[in-house]
Order: sequence, then C-alpha cells, then structure tokens
Amino acid sequence: MSGLRDRTLLASGFHMPERTGVEEFRDALIRIGADGRIAALTRPEDDGYLERRRAADEAGRLDRLPAGVLLLPGMIDLHVHAPQYPQLGQALDVPLETWLTRYTFPLESRYADLAFARRGYGLLVEDLLANGTTTALYYATIHQPASRLLADICLERGQRALIGKVAMDHPGLCPETYRDASPDAALRGTEDLIGYIRAHPDNAERLVHPVITPRFIPACTDETLAALGSLAHGSDLHVQTHCSESDWEHAHVLARHGVTDTESLDRFGLLGRRSVLAHSVFLTAADMDTIRARHAAVAHCPLSNAYFADAVFPLRAALEKGLHVGLGTDISGGPGASLFEAMRGAVMVSRMIDSGTDPDLPAGTRGRRNGMRIDFRDAFYLATTGGGIALDLPVGNFTAGQHFDALAIDTEAPAGAIRLWDGLDQGEDLLQKIVYTASKANIAKVWVGGRQVV
Amino acid sequence: MSGLRDRTLLASGFHMPERTGVEEFRDALIRIGADGRIAALTRPEDDGYLERRRAADEAGRLDRLPAGVLLLPGMIDLHVHAPQYPQLGQALDVPLETWLTRYTFPLESRYADLAFARRGYGLLVEDLLANGTTTALYYATIHQPASRLLADICLERGQRALIGKVAMDHPGLCPETYRDASPDAALRGTEDLIGYIRAHPDNAERLVHPVITPRFIPACTDETLAALGSLAHGSDLHVQTHCSESDWEHAHVLARHGVTDTESLDRFGLLGRRSVLAHSVFLTAADMDTIRARHAAVAHCPLSNAYFADAVFPLRAALEKGLHVGLGTDISGGPGASLFEAMRGAVMVSRMIDSGTDPDLPAGTRGRRNGMRIDFRDAFYLATTGGGIALDLPVGNFTAGQHFDALAIDTEAPAGAIRLWDGLDQGEDLLQKIVYTASKANIAKVWVGGRQVV
Ligand SMILES: [Zn+2]
Ligand SMILES: [Zn+2]
Repeated sequence: MSGLRDRTLLASGFHMPERTGVEEFRDALIRIGADGRIAALTRPEDDGYLERRRAADEAGRLDRLPAGVLLLPGMIDLHVHAPQYPQLGQALDVPLETWLTRYTFPLESRYADLAFARRGYGLLVEDLLANGTTTALYYATIHQPASRLLADICLERGQRALIGKVAMDHPGLCPETYRDASPDAALRGTEDLIGYIRAHPDNAERLVHPVITPRFIPACTDETLAALGSLAHGSDLHVQTHCSESDWEHAHVLARHGVTDTESLDRFGLLGRRSVLAHSVFLTAADMDTIRARHAAVAHCPLSNAYFADAVFPLRAALEKGLHVGLGTDISGGPGASLFEAMRGAVMVSRMIDSGTDPDLPAGTRGRRNGMRIDFRDAFYLATTGGGIALDLPVGNFTAGQHFDALAIDTEAPAGAIRLWDGLDQGEDLLQKIVYTASKANIAKVWVGGRQVV
Repeated sequence: MSGLRDRTLLASGFHMPERTGVEEFRDALIRIGADGRIAALTRPEDDGYLERRRAADEAGRLDRLPAGVLLLPGMIDLHVHAPQYPQLGQALDVPLETWLTRYTFPLESRYADLAFARRGYGLLVEDLLANGTTTALYYATIHQPASRLLADICLERGQRALIGKVAMDHPGLCPETYRDASPDAALRGTEDLIGYIRAHPDNAERLVHPVITPRFIPACTDETLAALGSLAHGSDLHVQTHCSESDWEHAHVLARHGVTDTESLDRFGLLGRRSVLAHSVFLTAADMDTIRARHAAVAHCPLSNAYFADAVFPLRAALEKGLHVGLGTDISGGPGASLFEAMRGAVMVSRMIDSGTDPDLPAGTRGRRNGMRIDFRDAFYLATTGGGIALDLPVGNFTAGQHFDALAIDTEAPAGAIRLWDGLDQGEDLLQKIVYTASKANIAKVWVGGRQVV
C-alpha cells in the first residue's frame, strides 16, 4: 500500500502527548509500521527494550539518528492561504481594505493561470515542508483547476494537507472579478474539489483531505452558508472559516445576523468536530461555550493578530475552558512561513496581553494580569498535539497509532541558528532553545506518514 | 593602512539616509576609498556616471553584484550582552529574579575561564557577522582578560564593535562571586580595558571602541557611578547602561535616588552625545527632554520588552521628540540574534502598544491609539542610520564619508527564505519583503570598513 516496510528508529527527542508536560525520550525505539504509523515507542527502561533493539538491528531494520540530532513531531499549521505565499512579508503597512483590494484579491485571482499556480503552490509546499510543516490546513482559491493542482502537489511532495476551494459569492463584499458566480457555483465548486480529492488515484492513504471553506461570513451569501452547512452536516468533512477576526468583521456579522460569528456559523450548521475557526479573537464567553460544545477548534494566528486584529486571541482563557486550539501562520496575514516563528509569536503576544504594553499605565492596570501568559511548552503543544486534536487526525506526537510525521533537528548544523554549550542545554532548557532559535538549516530531515520528504 | 585599494562597486539596493524616506538605487556606482570609506555614490542619472563607470572598469577596479543580489547597509546592534549568547532562547519562562540568579550571573561568571570565553565570543562574533550585524555595542563581563579577548576577536574577524567591561560593585545587588571588589576595582577595570583597546596594535583604524559600562544603577554604588561619570566627562568615550527597563528597576532607582534613572544618570555625568541607554521603557516627558538635550540615544529592544519590561518603549513618541534611537537585540533578554528579527519585533510591538491587545475592551480604548505604530521603513532606519547616529559613528547608509559597512542580500538563494515573484516585488514592496523574510542564508556577503568579512 504505502511501499514502506516496517522499521525502527533509534532516536532521542521531545514530544507532548498531553498539555500537562513535555516528555523527553533518549535512545528510544520508535517502531514504524508499513502503514507509516507508529506501532510503539519503547524507552530503555521499558520491558523488552534490548530484545527489540537487537531484533531490529539483526533484521537490518534499525535506523539511528546521529549524535546531536533530535526528533520532534512534525509541525501542524492550521491556517494557510496558499495563494498568498507570493506576498508573504508584504503590504503589512497598509490598512486591511488596501491589503484586500490592492494586493490580496488581485493576487488570488491570478490563480486562474495554472502556470502561475504551479510555481506558487510548488514553492509553498516545498518551503513549508523544509520549514518543518508536515500538516497544513489550506485555503486555496475559487478556481477549480488550481485547487486540484494544489492537491496534486501535496500528494506528489508528500505533505499531509487539508485543502478547501474557497467559497465567496457575496456580490457586495467580493470583487466582481474574483468571486463565485452564484451560491450554486460556490457549492458545486466545493463538491467538485471534494470529489476530486476523494477519488484521486494517489490518495488511497488519504494524505490529503477536502475542506468546506466559506471564506468568512461577510464574503458569503446566506444561501451559500446554508448550503455548505448542509453539506457538512452528518459528513466527516472538515470545515474552515474565519471567525471574529477583527473589529470591523465582528461588527459586520453582528449587524447582518444579529449574533456573533460563532452563533451564526452554528446556526448554519458549520460548527462541528472537524471545524477550525481561524483567529476567533473576539469570542464571547458564550461563543467559547458553543465552540466547546461542538468540539470545534480555533486556529490561533499570533503574528496576524498584531497586523489585522488590533487585539490578541485570549488563548489561555480558551485553553482553560477546554477548547481545542492549534497554531496558524496565516500566510500572508502573518509575515512568517514557519511554525517556529508562530510558536515564538504565540509566547510573545500572550505576554503582551497579560502584562500590557503602555508604560504610562500603572503595572497593575496595564494588562489583563490574569495569567494569560503561555510559555514555550504551551506553544510547542499547540503546534503539535494541539493541531492534531483540532483536526481530529492522529498526528502531533509519537504515541502508538499516530502517523509518523516528524522532524530531525540537527542541533549542530553550522548554517543553523541553534548553538549548544556543554552543561547548559539539557531537558526542557534544550527544547526551549530549539523552539526559540531553530532555523530551516537546523531541520535535517522531515517525515510524513513514515516517508522521508525532506 | 587598511591594505585596501580604491575601487568601485556597481550595485542596486536600498538605504535610508533620512528617516523621511527609503532611497532605492539601481546600478549605482559606489566608490570606496583605500580607507574603507565611501567616496561617492553615483546614480545612472548623475553627471559623469558613464565616465566613472568606464574608468573604473578599465582600471580593473569595478566589482559588480550579480543579478538578484541587492545591497543594504550593515545592521547596527545597540545592545548585546556578549557573554549571554550561550543562553540565547533560554530561561524566558522564568521570572527576572530567577533569570539573573540561576542563569545569567552564573553564566557571566564563567568568563573568568578564557577557554570558555574564546568559544563563546568567537561564535558570537562569527554568527552576528553572518546575520548581517556589522556594528555591535557590547556589554562584556567584569573580567579583564575575557573582555580583552572580545576586542581581539572583533579585530581579528573585522567586526566594528564597541566594548565595555561591565562595572558592577553594589554588594546588595550583585552576587558575591560575580562583582567588582570595590569602586576602585570597577574604575580601574574600566580604564584598563580603555587603555588596552586604544593601544591595540591592530586597532589603528579604531574599528573597536571602548565603552564606559555601568551595568545599571541598582548594580553600582554611587561612588562607582560618580567615578565613571568623571571619566566620561569631557572625553570622547562612549557610555552604555540600562535605563528604566522594568517596573521593579524604575521603582528601585526612584526609591534610592529620589529621581528617575535618566535624571540620576545625568547628575552623575553619564549622559552625553555618546551615551546609549538600553530599553528606556518608562521615560517621563521630562526624561525625554533631558535625553534630547544631552544628544544621548536609546537602544530600543522590542523582543526584550515583551519578556522583561512588561511594557513597550514608546518609540514613536521618542522619535517625534527628536531623540536618537536605534535597535538592539538585547541578547539574551531577547531570544533573537538578528537585527532582522529585531526590526520585525519593533513593528509588531509598536502595533500592539498602538492598538492594544485585550479584545474585551472597546476598540477605541484598547491601546494608546495615538499613532504609535511604525512600519518596516522606520524599523529599517533604526537598524541602520538610526544606529549610526546613536553611536555618533559614520555608519548606517551609503552617503559619502560613511564607512562601507554593507550586506549583499541574495534574494534568490534557494536555502534562504526570500521568495520573489515577477511583477510583485518592486521598490519599497521589495524592501518590505526583505525586512520580513530574509534569513541568514540570504546574506551572501558582509563588508565592514570596505573589507569583506563574510
Ligand atoms: Zn486567514
Ligand atoms: Zn541588557
């Protein structure tokens, strides 16, 4: 089926199956089945360790990571606008209106051109894999051929991906040159891509999943929202959209539907176990309860919060309510294409919402000051296991049953940015240093579903 | 003297001699004298361009940057704790007290060991140059031999550097195992390093400058502060210290001296044209007036603000008052060793102080909302010309008379993170993309004083 054979990797590294703590493993045996899933993680202190190690070795099925190379779970990006990669790091100095009309919509509409799409999507998938992103939840565009091409490219390069044809048909808020012609066109385009991905001859293992993708409420007619909600209902399909992203957007939905984004999405049947809501900055307490009751998830995009939300998603409050949360780069609303940057950004913005920013205010009143801070552990959890739970996919850590999606971090790569010192870098201190300083040059290998893809 | 010969570089790129605007140049001739300084920048539309180009070419003295490679001024880092490089990206999850006593002071005290210092300082200078930092203002430690070694290494590798032996003698606030034994020891150590750097046989060009470096007011006795102030008075020596960095520190100085850090430093004679105050988050309006009147400068360290200040330096207000300001990484109070990361951080924190962070507050009251935002242009100015002005050194842009400190940015390096698209990346949009996405792999060459050092 996968063309892989059962084998065992001898590795040291870190993962976080639970949010409560980092687990370090040293010289562990990770047995990977022919299906690319982890059969077992065995530590030196576990029963049968030596026998298993010897058996794998004698069968010629034991691989070892070199000294200085550590294993981390693959990173999961819950919010990527695939067509916006060409403008990463641009137009962050202009208002949202200009960003959309002068940069983003014209760029996305260029994906009608398959040659342009091939270069853009090819480079994106290649770069994200090299950055350590083994799973990505992608917005494509409204175009069928280009969206199919993105699925082809992910299958060819071996990236785990969830891809949605963007539905956007509201004549008032979408440009005439870049929108679905009707609710029917939005629905049919969505169904067509679902059919294409499900029937794809190279997708027997379901490496790529289709996603129902209303761009955001303002861009969709009620008819389209209702049709997409019906499509989602009772299916196992993923849903993604933006939720309460900015003051303008939040107020717009309140004015149009008389309820918050979350309530409105719920009424349209778009909130379920496999729904991922990007941003969700302005959730009310009731919204959080609703999201939790539906077992839906939030894609927290910290860098993008700073540029387009004018506020920060109250991550800690959401986690404490028990919401599923993972991280997103929001390419290109955030200027970084790496989950490592998103992890660093998540810690940074959490400190700023907690402690505040204005030095003219007294320390006690400057921020929320109610324990909104996270640290590198939480960020690492969100980028791995948190993302897997959000997507309802068995990825994000090395427990048995998970797909073997992983990174080999070369902590000694001269061209990299990690610098280790004897005696200073042990246990969680070492993981913290990796989270804060790893660069692309430190990512020596990347596996998805047991297959080495970088 | 320098061993260089007069030559001309044919290059395209960007610089910002004035804060009012980015200057782009295409196919400009940059004539660099044998002293490593820029003799002239001539554009194709300037008189004599073709003659100069032909003359340089015929004399075999014309170098050309390849297509896709752009020239930027070298980056200037106004705040680096050189001995803290081994803990970059660590201990950011602990309170300041723990950060100092369990991590930072024990680490700095290891620089009594010259072998440890050699590895730490050697790697730091090499990495900062590779990251594009052509000038760094360094805190060393209290140790004379290690601080001298840092000067030796900067001279050997060719980094423009300003280096201070740290003065810290307050028995109440410095650990017994890591402090100057007396005010006299603090002063003599400072004078010794000044003498060593000035008399260094390899420093005839004054690539390395000594700096009077009281750690911060709490760590110094009044006797030491007064002695260092006298040393600075009437000299051309640089001074660096921390100023109003955190609530605790700010309150401590108010309680001890009855005035703010700025006023206190001014009374001790430590504020002058060549003084650089790190952080300066909690400046009053009167403090800003004083700093301006003394023509002193602020080293804004945006990443560190998030981790240790619990507030953000009101940069825009300082710029509008006319203060000299540049950027600092604050290695290791900030987790990044690159001025590119500092530029990105500066934009991000400026947006958060302006717009606020707490989504539960109404948009209008969430932040200061008084135009505190900067954009990539301001950040680029701060990291280049702003840093040069702060240090009172002719570095930071390509106008005649400046040292030729520069970076060649390979915008097409496959291992880099910049990705260009035909038609999208022109003029300031291109510079913005470089500021947000350039990685070490995009920095193809680095020059300091006309000499290629990377
Ligand atoms: Zn988005
Ligand atoms: Zn500092």
